Amino acid sequence: MKKAENASVRIIPLGGLEQIGMNITAIEYDDSIIVVDCGLSFPEEDMLGIDLVIPDVTYLKENLNKVKGFVITHGHEDHIGAIPYVLKDVNVPIYATKLTMGLIESKLKEHNMLKSVKRKVVKYGQSVTLGDFRVEFIRTNHSIADAAALAIYSPAGIIVHTGDFKVDYTPVYGDPIDLQRLGELGKKGVLALMCDSTNALRPGFTMSEKTVGATFEKIFNDNKNSRIIIATFASNVDRVQQIINSAVKYGRKVCVEGRSMVNIIEVAEDLDYLKIPDGTLIETDEMKNYTPEQIVLITTGSQGESMAALSRMAANLHRKVSIQLGDCVVFSSTPIPGNEKSVAKVINELGMKGAKVIFQDTHVSGHACQEEIKLIYSLVKPKYSIPVHGEYRHLVAQRDVVMSLGYDKDHVIIAKSGDVLELNDEHAQVVDHVQTGAIFVDGLGVGDVGNIVLRDRQNLAENGIIIVVLTLEKYTGQLIAGPDIVTRGFVYVREAEELLDEARAIVSDSVEKCLDKNITDWSKIKNIIKDDLSEYLWKKIKRNPVILPIIMEAQI
Amino acid sequence: MKKAENASVRIIPLGGLEQIGMNITAIEYDDSIIVVDCGLSFPEEDMLGIDLVIPDVTYLKENLNKVKGFVITHGHEDHIGAIPYVLKDVNVPIYATKLTMGLIESKLKEHNMLKSVKRKVVKYGQSVTLGDFRVEFIRTNHSIADAAALAIYSPAGIIVHTGDFKVDYTPVYGDPIDLQRLGELGKKGVLALMCDSTNALRPGFTMSEKTVGATFEKIFNDNKNSRIIIATFASNVDRVQQIINSAVKYGRKVCVEGRSMVNIIEVAEDLDYLKIPDGTLIETDEMKNYTPEQIVLITTGSQGESMAALSRMAANLHRKVSIQLGDCVVFSSTPIPGNEKSVAKVINELGMKGAKVIFQDTHVSGHACQEEIKLIYSLVKPKYSIPVHGEYRHLVAQRDVVMSLGYDKDHVIIAKSGDVLELNDEHAQVVDHVQTGAIFVDGLGVGDVGNIVLRDRQNLAENGIIIVVLTLEKYTGQLIAGPDIVTRGFVYVREAEELLDEARAIVSDSVEKCLDKNITDWSKIKNIIKDDLSEYLWKKIKRNPVILPIIMEAQI
Repeated sequence: MKKAENASVRIIPLGGLEQIGMNITAIEYDDSIIVVDCGLSFPEEDMLGIDLVIPDVTYLKENLNKVKGFVITHGHEDHIGAIPYVLKDVNVPIYATKLTMGLIESKLKEHNMLKSVKRKVVKYGQSVTLGDFRVEFIRTNHSIADAAALAIYSPAGIIVHTGDFKVDYTPVYGDPIDLQRLGELGKKGVLALMCDSTNALRPGFTMSEKTVGATFEKIFNDNKNSRIIIATFASNVDRVQQIINSAVKYGRKVCVEGRSMVNIIEVAEDLDYLKIPDGTLIETDEMKNYTPEQIVLITTGSQGESMAALSRMAANLHRKVSIQLGDCVVFSSTPIPGNEKSVAKVINELGMKGAKVIFQDTHVSGHACQEEIKLIYSLVKPKYSIPVHGEYRHLVAQRDVVMSLGYDKDHVIIAKSGDVLELNDEHAQVVDHVQTGAIFVDGLGVGDVGNIVLRDRQNLAENGIIIVVLTLEKYTGQLIAGPDIVTRGFVYVREAEELLDEARAIVSDSVEKCLDKNITDWSKIKNIIKDDLSEYLWKKIKRNPVILPIIMEAQI
Repeated sequence: MKKAENASVRIIPLGGLEQIGMNITAIEYDDSIIVVDCGLSFPEEDMLGIDLVIPDVTYLKENLNKVKGFVITHGHEDHIGAIPYVLKDVNVPIYATKLTMGLIESKLKEHNMLKSVKRKVVKYGQSVTLGDFRVEFIRTNHSIADAAALAIYSPAGIIVHTGDFKVDYTPVYGDPIDLQRLGELGKKGVLALMCDSTNALRPGFTMSEKTVGATFEKIFNDNKNSRIIIATFASNVDRVQQIINSAVKYGRKVCVEGRSMVNIIEVAEDLDYLKIPDGTLIETDEMKNYTPEQIVLITTGSQGESMAALSRMAANLHRKVSIQLGDCVVFSSTPIPGNEKSVAKVINELGMKGAKVIFQDTHVSGHACQEEIKLIYSLVKPKYSIPVHGEYRHLVAQRDVVMSLGYDKDHVIIAKSGDVLELNDEHAQVVDHVQTGAIFVDGLGVGDVGNIVLRDRQNLAENGIIIVVLTLEKYTGQLIAGPDIVTRGFVYVREAEELLDEARAIVSDSVEKCLDKNITDWSKIKNIIKDDLSEYLWKKIKRNPVILPIIMEAQI
């Protein structure tokens, strides 16, 4: 990629800023667009009933002929989860390292898309040429193996994207992050660094994954007479490897529970990212052939997710495993913000069933803290800093770190999703804004639940619904049946007979009033019913249920 | 209170175990019952639409003639919040220290109960005699002034209840916890200690409230050119005092926002727990007469509660205050588990509006950590330990701390709400179980929303509702109107016209089928409609909305 004079490259984050999740960034030069990552996010608390959230890629659809491919940094859901949805509209080749591609493929398979999507596995150090871009994959460390930073060579200069990373000098699998290559690129001259902000609020260094292995050693040694159950993130293959290592050393069989855990272990073992000695794994059904101290159970549910295996065990709802007095349960995780209470609930339930619960020193983060961020900037020495992968407060925290290295404010760009950021040697500025947003996936429906539906769900959730039905004659407007009142989620009917009787009387009055006055506009009648009933209920019990009058039309 | 031979006292927690909140414990001897605290809890995430949760006090109602009074340890909601509800049924005198009583009175006033409830303010060191009991109030420290431990003298021995406490050698208001008296009681011999477990998982000592004052000093000194906005817990009067102290020192006026903050400052100032120099307080409307650096705003919203003042300021929804570039916003709090995400949201919004946000070293807990718990046990040296005020994991953590002091497992009792714990010199055992539970308050309704209503709300929240209405002739069963379909919270209608058309056709078929077969049992017809429609929707879009068929009856 020769550098062109006065050339500008455009960076367009289509998601991933203002939030942790839904990472996807378009990088554009002339007639070429490449897309870094294609992630989903999980629904916020107020997105009732929503299963997944995927990015609005209208911009890519409108520029379909420019889009050369997706380059994926690693295999976490917030980086690959939207691929099956987005590629239905934007079917271009995907480039990723081996394990990442393995996880993408198991997703495509589920969606029956394996045959229709072009894919290429890339090794660390290799490059792929995509239109006017060349993209080099660089080894990093993260909480999943095979994570890559990207050096994106454009006619306007080199952009380095760290992906999600940490600096682990003693990783469990493979080599440490390729600091030398990052330094080499820095020497060449880097136009912009897009760097992970997740832990930018945390001082210091993230500990090595190996320190967790040391804790496991101690736990296995201290609990020789207990069954050991360890919950962790399914995708943390290195963590699973360390559990297996300890299990083998202490002569325990390993049993795996939880669909995603079983799935990822399968992919990782197939691709040689996980080494499990023959005879180590047993089926859950075989546990009965062993004593508790001969078993380690690896399970999902480290976030207290109510449907995950560990939560079901704790609540006595698991089909095959029940918690026994003396079990030693390890949470190899920290709660993701928002999950603290569900995790606490599971810990309490486990304790009540007689299990000992361990959650200290059993997890390290996969993201770089402040000192690591400084290290990367000191190697790459970009002209511009573009903090990515974070809420606003994380992006600002990275800016503060970068400015402590001597950068001025003009060279650190806090962008928003949808910003079109134009960069060249002379300047970095937001020149435009494109459509972005969150599309809700609920069941098989993609985008058919929007904000109005969510607002309705919120109202229904908080106050329940009162349905008023009546049948009127089509021409005369005469009342043929009703008004009847039916409620759901409003009040326990047996406790509120009087209230409901009065409500019925109020509605009857309203209908009579309308008929007397010869009001024939049904929407008017509905509004009068709504207003009268709502006023009565607020006065009486200070509640605001959804009131839904339905008028049926009969012809007799 | 003379000690009677072989006498047993019964401790009956009616709430407060298995959770932090809803503290209320009956202590019974012969024909006397006293009740320690009468708190509420705030709704869990799955209690949709519920405002408050109060304890089921059936046991007290059934033993009304025995109940001699409520002794209250301090003025937090989880200790006093249920008083207006419970005293409607169990109207006995209340005993509390001055500030605690002030806060109880403002509650009673709201409920128009000030005249009907007997009250007595008790000083530290004083005792009240209640039936067979004498109760002594002992000074402690907590995150609200006037907190008390109770020494409960019964014919079976002394029970010490710590209330919520910490050991603060340098409190902001008043004196440190009365360690000497606790030691004296220990020398006399204490049957049981009921001790706060909130921080029993945390090693070390909780820092003094004064350390937060030192942080405020630094913040005021570092931000001389900014308006300072500090969010904290309304009830933490000492915290507010420290903010006012710094404000006075740096020549700033103080403005207060948030209903509960205004209310508590009023009560505390009235009762002399808060010293505010004349001319320090200004109204929010007067802020415009001052420059930013002349103002401190104390506000509610430190937990990111969406309706609280700070959240409304951050979201640009506050009537009087908007965040300005350069504002310095301090969170003098840590998020209570479950609130992490809402706090982060507010921090992000404040940042985007140009405010600097500070949340480090700006808060200390009001609860004792492990070393303080050890101190209290070493002074009181009870025969039995009964950890209270905590989820199961906290109670167990206190047990571990206590056992590290040499207690054996038989002398530490992990009780459950409703357990009737019988204690004497010889034994401590659960001898019975009484009715307890959570009663939901929604608007003005107390107890009219139960689990069925909540389950309906949950279903409505996740999937929305489809209402199918039809009118049948009373005698012939002939279809007069409908079937019509109306939905709420199900699907964005314009995105799903085809789906809804098909659904309508499915329902019409079901109805026709029923009429053809001469099925006249309406509940059967409803079930057939439900089953057919539900099967169709699951197949088509993998969703399970609430389906509510309504059949109206007409007579023509």
